[in-house]
Amino acid sequence: MKFLDFRSDTLTVPSDSMRARMAKASVGDDYYREDPTISAIEDYAADLLGKEAALFVLSGTMGNLVSIRAQVPPGAAVIVGNTSHIHLNETGHLASVCGLTSHPTPTPDGRYDIPALEASSPVPKPGASPSVLNPRLKLICVENTHNGEGGRCLDNTYLASLREFANVRGLTFHMDGARVFNAAVALGCKVSELVSHVDSVSFCLSKGLGAPGGAIVAASRHVIEEARHWRQMVGGGMRQAGIFAAAGLMALQENVEDLAIDHNNAKQLARGLVEAGLDVDVAKVETNIVMAYIPQSLTSPGEFFDSMKRAGVLTLPPKGNRLRFVIHRDISNADVMLGLQRIGQLTESFKKVQQNA
Amino acid sequence: MKFLDFRSDTLTVPSDSMRARMAKASVGDDYYREDPTISAIEDYAADLLGKEAALFVLSGTMGNLVSIRAQVPPGAAVIVGNTSHIHLNETGHLASVCGLTSHPTPTPDGRYDIPALEASSPVPKPGASPSVLNPRLKLICVENTHNGEGGRCLDNTYLASLREFANVRGLTFHMDGARVFNAAVALGCKVSELVSHVDSVSFCLSKGLGAPGGAIVAASRHVIEEARHWRQMVGGGMRQAGIFAAAGLMALQENVEDLAIDHNNAKQLARGLVEAGLDVDVAKVETNIVMAYIPQSLTSPGEFFDSMKRAGVLTLPPKGNRLRFVIHRDISNADVMLGLQRIGQLTESFKKVQQNA
Amino acid sequence: MKFLDFRSDTLTVPSDSMRARMAKASVGDDYYREDPTISAIEDYAADLLGKEAALFVLSGTMGNLVSIRAQVPPGAAVIVGNTSHIHLNETGHLASVCGLTSHPTPTPDGRYDIPALEASSPVPKPGASPSVLNPRLKLICVENTHNGEGGRCLDNTYLASLREFANVRGLTFHMDGARVFNAAVALGCKVSELVSHVDSVSFCLSKGLGAPGGAIVAASRHVIEEARHWRQMVGGGMRQAGIFAAAGLMALQENVEDLAIDHNNAKQLARGLVEAGLDVDVAKVETNIVMAYIPQSLTSPGEFFDSMKRAGVLTLPPKGNRLRFVIHRDISNADVMLGLQRIGQLTESFKKVQQNA
Amino acid sequence: MKFLDFRSDTLTVPSDSMRARMAKASVGDDYYREDPTISAIEDYAADLLGKEAALFVLSGTMGNLVSIRAQVPPGAAVIVGNTSHIHLNETGHLASVCGLTSHPTPTPDGRYDIPALEASSPVPKPGASPSVLNPRLKLICVENTHNGEGGRCLDNTYLASLREFANVRGLTFHMDGARVFNAAVALGCKVSELVSHVDSVSFCLSKGLGAPGGAIVAASRHVIEEARHWRQMVGGGMRQAGIFAAAGLMALQENVEDLAIDHNNAKQLARGLVEAGLDVDVAKVETNIVMAYIPQSLTSPGEFFDSMKRAGVLTLPPKGNRLRFVIHRDISNADVMLGLQRIGQLTESFKKVQQNA
Repeated sequence: MKFLDFRSDTLTVPSDSMRARMAKASVGDDYYREDPTISAIEDYAADLLGKEAALFVLSGTMGNLVSIRAQVPPGAAVIVGNTSHIHLNETGHLASVCGLTSHPTPTPDGRYDIPALEASSPVPKPGASPSVLNPRLKLICVENTHNGEGGRCLDNTYLASLREFANVRGLTFHMDGARVFNAAVALGCKVSELVSHVDSVSFCLSKGLGAPGGAIVAASRHVIEEARHWRQMVGGGMRQAGIFAAAGLMALQENVEDLAIDHNNAKQLARGLVEAGLDVDVAKVETNIVMAYIPQSLTSPGEFFDSMKRAGVLTLPPKGNRLRFVIHRDISNADVMLGLQRIGQLTESFKKVQQNA
Repeated sequence: MKFLDFRSDTLTVPSDSMRARMAKASVGDDYYREDPTISAIEDYAADLLGKEAALFVLSGTMGNLVSIRAQVPPGAAVIVGNTSHIHLNETGHLASVCGLTSHPTPTPDGRYDIPALEASSPVPKPGASPSVLNPRLKLICVENTHNGEGGRCLDNTYLASLREFANVRGLTFHMDGARVFNAAVALGCKVSELVSHVDSVSFCLSKGLGAPGGAIVAASRHVIEEARHWRQMVGGGMRQAGIFAAAGLMALQENVEDLAIDHNNAKQLARGLVEAGLDVDVAKVETNIVMAYIPQSLTSPGEFFDSMKRAGVLTLPPKGNRLRFVIHRDISNADVMLGLQRIGQLTESFKKVQQNA
Repeated sequence: MKFLDFRSDTLTVPSDSMRARMAKASVGDDYYREDPTISAIEDYAADLLGKEAALFVLSGTMGNLVSIRAQVPPGAAVIVGNTSHIHLNETGHLASVCGLTSHPTPTPDGRYDIPALEASSPVPKPGASPSVLNPRLKLICVENTHNGEGGRCLDNTYLASLREFANVRGLTFHMDGARVFNAAVALGCKVSELVSHVDSVSFCLSKGLGAPGGAIVAASRHVIEEARHWRQMVGGGMRQAGIFAAAGLMALQENVEDLAIDHNNAKQLARGLVEAGLDVDVAKVETNIVMAYIPQSLTSPGEFFDSMKRAGVLTLPPKGNRLRFVIHRDISNADVMLGLQRIGQLTESFKKVQQNA
Repeated sequence: MKFLDFRSDTLTVPSDSMRARMAKASVGDDYYREDPTISAIEDYAADLLGKEAALFVLSGTMGNLVSIRAQVPPGAAVIVGNTSHIHLNETGHLASVCGLTSHPTPTPDGRYDIPALEASSPVPKPGASPSVLNPRLKLICVENTHNGEGGRCLDNTYLASLREFANVRGLTFHMDGARVFNAAVALGCKVSELVSHVDSVSFCLSKGLGAPGGAIVAASRHVIEEARHWRQMVGGGMRQAGIFAAAGLMALQENVEDLAIDHNNAKQLARGLVEAGLDVDVAKVETNIVMAYIPQSLTSPGEFFDSMKRAGVLTLPPKGNRLRFVIHRDISNADVMLGLQRIGQLTESFKKVQQNA
């Protein structure tokens, strides 16, 4: 039985052509800035994002860490989404490495409610002198697309409003853009537009773009040089990692447009799951992530998850009654159809059990 | 004009008899544990709270800091109230000194919703193996009484439930008991009962108890010895501070019962403010704090605050349309009556302006 | 038997007149900057030291901590003396609170060898661009007088040279001046001259000056306001601590000149210890500290220490064969003479034992 | 002109066969522990080193960081060599990420003087109760081979003595074994013997072993699982990094013995440099590093360095009058001979200038 693995887009494996590019990449010792392929991806990414400079890092987590460490003084405070990856899933580096107090704030549909932010207690009022009691708020982060909220996109209009808020309150603005290319493709705009609103952005070369690892931070030249210092501190300095960078560069050059295929597959999956009897808000499926809810009337989340697994359909374990399906370039349309067929059979059998109960 | 200062119970000044006690206190170098008055207050407080040991510290903030540093490994996570003093008003030491990620969580009426806590994402499921992604949750804090929620009390029943939650999830349980004697007096129970549920508690000798400064941490002997180490790290080591401790000891021995007077005055103030036209939920005035809301129909919060100030009634600036009035031993019943008279005149004149508008 | 306690000048207890000053001190809530006595000592100290502003803190350790936290970004590096209090005896706050890498450097006679410093590896060469490999050196600390090196004084000539070094290498210059008034008295200069070379200084009101606690940080107004923020973070915020400040203010106003008496007593003690058969470099006794070495020919350090204790002469336990005697205002000339008499008897008896062996 | 690059063994580039191994490596998402090649190198390395478990990390710096973070509580103290890489060249992570106070200690020939250590002030005396003043000493690190001391080897006898010291004083023992395979080859023993004395070891797959990056930490299973957590915190989590691990695994399997060739070339270089008129202590050239001193009589270090560069011989800039030459697998014996020829010509011409002066 073929396993259909919807756990995460981090599961993408490099294609043969990507392996070929890696195999022949020019390399050197990047500590001495002598790896031409790392320099190439940094230059290419900076251009593509419209930022002065970029830095190749091992992971999105490292990208967020070093770009924030480069801009925000330890002891300050930051606003992060309460379901964001940086708050929940990066092992607490904002506090334990950067010494920053987080104010996790709700982001329904991936978005802060800006008027609520403006009124909230950690946000300094314009013109107010800082109190010795409060850590000084210095940064606001967004996640685009927002994984924990179902791959939702933040568009230019919203980002411009948040930039305005950041300006008025004197905040640095960082984007965890792990999947920012998904956002740009879904919104039909350039990624450089989306990141024009922020001071720094980190994005992943793995995930939907299909490289075996690596991430990029882009910002002003000064911030990137600072980030290079803190990257070294956490052991992120590179040697002949041009081999990895070659994969990332190819991913950036050739794989971005393919994300539209994933988005179509995700929408098809969403519609099919509704037909199969799961609850999905199809209108909210904007990119490659589908949040599906198992109706209480059908069966328990644990039992449904186990049954899917036995039927060769994998996701991460449910949170409450919510299952996350993630589409990526190694999941074809045929895989989606096969998955839906299997899930349809499952829900049918659960319904029968319910009817007979 | 006599100023009536309702800004905070931290404003209490030592009485003449307290000054006399301070003036004749026996002292020595506490670094060598040779200050008999510091030893006396530590022993007295440990007994009173039913804990193995206690430590005299400069402030409630230092008490929270060193007791948490003593029990929770840096890099872990903690649950704190989203309006708690420790999260908002202690300059971010949980992150910047202790390296801890905070999960600020709503506490309406000062209380976490325990079932919501149990289901929340930062809380490990019983038996689940820890993920490398998440900082490990190690601590839950409560604030009793809860300043930011209007001086609300946490009673033994609630604290026992939270202790049970902490036990099941493997968490240390700390109480920011800056005003825990207010809670005990209001609930009519012993403070030792209230703190029997927690691993550690910090309380203030200033505030309602009337000492000019100082706070106490109480816990197991091992935790207190650890706290002594981290107290030294933050420069909290004492020399001949028995002079200060003498005031604290007298406050503990003689001033606790007087808190009931403050609570009565607070209730009277609350009822009077309602009569004057402010919105106060009188039933929620359990201790010495009154949260009053300025009706939009009356005037703007800023104008009301300024008018009060001109009339000789001080509070901290409003948050939104909320004013906090704090009662303490240096505010008599006559002061409360005088304050209500002045505020009544104010609201009358604002009402007239509205009627004429 | 009267105990003669040479362990430390931290043992001084407040005099009756000092207690009287404390008892009648004007106080208020210093959080709101309403404690007139704290304001008075801060203003007085700033004037006396010739700095823009000063801050009252609980201890010299806290003073060093908050003034360095206020000036040096976490993640940087500092040069400290390898026998300095700040490196060895402040519980590691430079690393664990400030995130600073220390380069402990020898200071024979309390002084760095400046040419050796200039050539040393952590010190950036003038004009060199920083490497990502090294934490950035941002600060140099001195201790004046230098406790661990026997109370040695750093004079204006030396401090001016070090200031020049700091300027060329772009370093902030901090003085742990726990006993800087001893230095000024011994050198016969104003304390304001000695601290004119540094960006910030912390000194103790306890120790030789005789207050029961407290310390002062002095620096530019901006640095002091920053230090106030970080003082709050470590729980060093004050309430009605004017009672303590009153003692410190009196100590500053009345006790500084008395330090000369201590220095004379220390020299007399040193000469007497030599006569008694201990090794003391009398020329190096500049202030109130005497480092005496127990000759191997006499007896073991442990046995000598125990014998002194039995004879009513206390010091801290020996380090190797070195005993530190500290003189202060509660040790009279008669006490010194009595101590020398007892020690003389001891050494006589040890010599006899040796002769008979 | 062919450039002969003696700057560092980090400059090694992957061979064609290594690239081929990388190109066909099996990969998966290592977050889910599904990358077979990463698992293979971790198992292989654990076996080779005789430790329970191993972890693949990006760099030696990251290896040191996460293995120390896994074993030592923040706020403690560590003994490190005063010329060690971990103290000078890892951007201060011990302080700024781990909150540890370092006691940098001289290591002539790469070795602590153990009796001096035992007597030193930061080292707790056996049985002494800890003081609140001192950060608690918890760890000792060695570097083997010791880069800053000229690639010196620590042998089993010495390491056993240090293990004994660590045991008596209750310290964890970590080895920065960036070049520990050089040590094993030079000493003619198994690497597992050398690391049997320590609790944890980190070594580099780049440098002499020739992989394009990556390092390994080996320790007990518990420590490795903890290190995995802290690796995630610093953004060191891997995805399909098996491609990199494949290079490292091949390096471990095939390249270790070749280090002997480098050592021979280094000795030949050392002897040749002496013949050319530089000062080298040939007996101290134990591995692949040659420390050569430019005699003052010849020319200035800066001029010599510049002349070498013009002649196509590269090293890092001199420290004082010391030049470090590093040999590795991409430097052949012929390269060494050619380098010596060029340097010989240089020194000849400098001598002539001196004679004519």
